[in-house]
Amino acid sequence: MKSIFYSRFFILLPWILIVIIVIDIDTKRSSVRNTASFYFSRMGTVQQRQQDVRATRSSSGFGSNGTSLPVIYAITPTYSRAVQKAELTRLANTFRQVPQFHWIVVEDSNSHTELVSRFLARSGLRCTHLNVFTPRRFKRTGMPRATEQRNAALGWLRGHRTSKDKGVVFFADDDNTYSLELFEEMRSTRRVSVWPVGLVGGRRYERPLVEKGKVVGWYTGWRADRPFAIDMAGFAVNLQVILSNPRALFKRRGAKPGMQESDFLKQITKVEELEPKAHNCTQVLVWHTRTEKVNLGNEPKRQRDSVFIEV
Amino acid sequence: MKSIFYSRFFILLPWILIVIIVIDIDTKRSSVRNTASFYFSRMGTVQQRQQDVRATRSSSGFGSNGTSLPVIYAITPTYSRAVQKAELTRLANTFRQVPQFHWIVVEDSNSHTELVSRFLARSGLRCTHLNVFTPRRFKRTGMPRATEQRNAALGWLRGHRTSKDKGVVFFADDDNTYSLELFEEMRSTRRVSVWPVGLVGGRRYERPLVEKGKVVGWYTGWRADRPFAIDMAGFAVNLQVILSNPRALFKRRGAKPGMQESDFLKQITKVEELEPKAHNCTQVLVWHTRTEKVNLGNEPKRQRDSVFIEV
Repeated sequence: MKSIFYSRFFILLPWILIVIIVIDIDTKRSSVRNTASFYFSRMGTVQQRQQDVRATRSSSGFGSNGTSLPVIYAITPTYSRAVQKAELTRLANTFRQVPQFHWIVVEDSNSHTELVSRFLARSGLRCTHLNVFTPRRFKRTGMPRATEQRNAALGWLRGHRTSKDKGVVFFADDDNTYSLELFEEMRSTRRVSVWPVGLVGGRRYERPLVEKGKVVGWYTGWRADRPFAIDMAGFAVNLQVILSNPRALFKRRGAKPGMQESDFLKQITKVEELEPKAHNCTQVLVWHTRTEKVNLGNEPKRQRDSVFIEV
Repeated sequence: MKSIFYSRFFILLPWILIVIIVIDIDTKRSSVRNTASFYFSRMGTVQQRQQDVRATRSSSGFGSNGTSLPVIYAITPTYSRAVQKAELTRLANTFRQVPQFHWIVVEDSNSHTELVSRFLARSGLRCTHLNVFTPRRFKRTGMPRATEQRNAALGWLRGHRTSKDKGVVFFADDDNTYSLELFEEMRSTRRVSVWPVGLVGGRRYERPLVEKGKVVGWYTGWRADRPFAIDMAGFAVNLQVILSNPRALFKRRGAKPGMQESDFLKQITKVEELEPKAHNCTQVLVWHTRTEKVNLGNEPKRQRDSVFIEV
C-alpha cells in the first residue's frame, strides 16, 4: 500500500513541477515582449496580423507582479519632412522599452503614407495609425499646430475604449526626448498629472511649483498668467477622464499659440486637482528638443542615383 | 518486467523534461538582460559594482544561438551643453536594445562631469567613461571636431583589449539617429564595413556605390574627390584592425574639415577592400540629425527657483 502511494507520488510530483514551471515562463515572457528580439523577428509578411494578435493579447495584459498595468496611450502627431523617419525611429526605440504601451500616430495627410505605414508595421509596437489633413489656412506661423491630429486621436479613444479600460493618455510630439522613467511616473495618473519639461519657454526648464503635494503656481519664462503654464509634454490624463468629458478637445477657434494646453486642461480639471509627479516636480524626465531643419542644398535637381532609397 | 520498465520510464521522463526546461529558461534569460527591467532595477548605490560584474559576465557572453557575438564598441564624444543629457538619454534608449554592446563615452572636459557620471551609472549599459580636454585653439569654426576624444577611445581599446577579443568599433556621435538594424549589419565586419548615411552633405543621403559586391565610388553632394567620401557614421572597423594598426589615429595636423574620415581610413584600408552592408548600400539605417541650439533667452539672470534641477 505504502509503496503504491510512493510510486504515485513520484510519478505525479514532476508533472506538477512541469506545469508550474511552464506557467511561470509564460508570465515572465509577456513582460519582456517589448524587446528588440521581438522587433527583429517581425520582418515577415504577416506583420499586421501579428500586431493585431499581439494587441488583443496584451490588452488584457498583466504586470509581472500580477496586477494589471494601465496602458499608456501616447498620441504623436507627425508630418512628412526630411527628418520624419529619423525622428520616428528614435521615438520607437524609446517606446519599445515601455511595457503596456499603445502608440497612436496621426499623420497630417489625406491618407496613410507608405513611409509611416511601413515604419509602424516593422516597429514592434502596438500601434494605431490615423490621418487627418490640416487645411492650408491653418498652417501659418503663430497658429497652433497639430490640433486636428490630437483631436482625431481623442476621437479614436472615445470610439474604441470603454469605462472598463484602464489607461493613461499622453501627448508625445515626435521631436521631444523621453526618458523611460517618465512613463513609470505617469502610469499612476488618477485624473491629470503634471511634471517639469526641459528646454522650453526660453529656459532650461519649466515646472509646476508644488507645496504640500499641491500645485500652487508655475516656474516659467513665458506668459506666467496662463491658467496652466505647461507644455504639451508636461501632463498626462487618465483615460476615464477623456471618456467622461466627451466634448473636451483642442480648439482652433479663438485659440492663441501657446494656449492649447491651457484651453484643453481647463475643460477637464482645475489647478488644485493636479497630481504632481517626478518627485514633486523637481526632476526633468522629458526634454523639448527640436531637430534642425535639414540643408538639402546639394540635392541634385534630377534623380542622379540609380536606385530609389527611402530616407 | 514490462510494467517495471514502463513505471521507470514514466518516473524518469518528467524529470528529464524539467531539466531541459530549466536549461532552456536560463539561456533565454541571458539574452534579454539588456532590457528596461534591468535598467529600472539599477537605482541603488551598488550601481558601479553591478555594472562591473555585468561587464565581466557579458565579456564572455554568447549569443542565443550559442556562438559568441562580437562586442560592438560605440565611441561617443560628448561635450557640456543644454541638450547634452537629452541627447545621451535617447542614445542610451537605443543602445540598451543592442546585445553585446559597450559604450565608450569621451567627454571634452578636464575631468569626468557629475552629470555624465551619474547618467552612465544609471544607464543600464556597459560603459567606459573617459575624458580629454580639447585645447581652445582647436575650437574654431572649420576645425575638425572631437579628434582628441576619438583618439582617447582608440587608445583605451589598444590598452585594454587583445588579439583574443572579438569586436567591432563604431564612431557614434551623440546627435545622430540610429536604427537597431544598423548594429546587426555592422556586427559581421571583417575589416572595414560601409553603408549609407541619411541627411548629410546637403543631400537626403550619401552612399557608397557598389558593383558586384565591391565599392566603386561615392554618391555624394560634397567633395566627391575625397578618397573615402563618407561620414563618421558611415563605417565600422573590426577591433583587430584597430589593434594591428596601433598608429592609426585621427589627425589634427594638416587635417581639413570633412577629411577626418578619409585621413583615418587611408591608414587602415583601401577602397577596394571595403565591405558594403545594408543590402549593398541601398538602405538608410542611420541619420545625421542635428539638434537645434536651445534658446535660453528667458532664463533668469539670478537663480529664481527654490531648488537646483539638473536638465
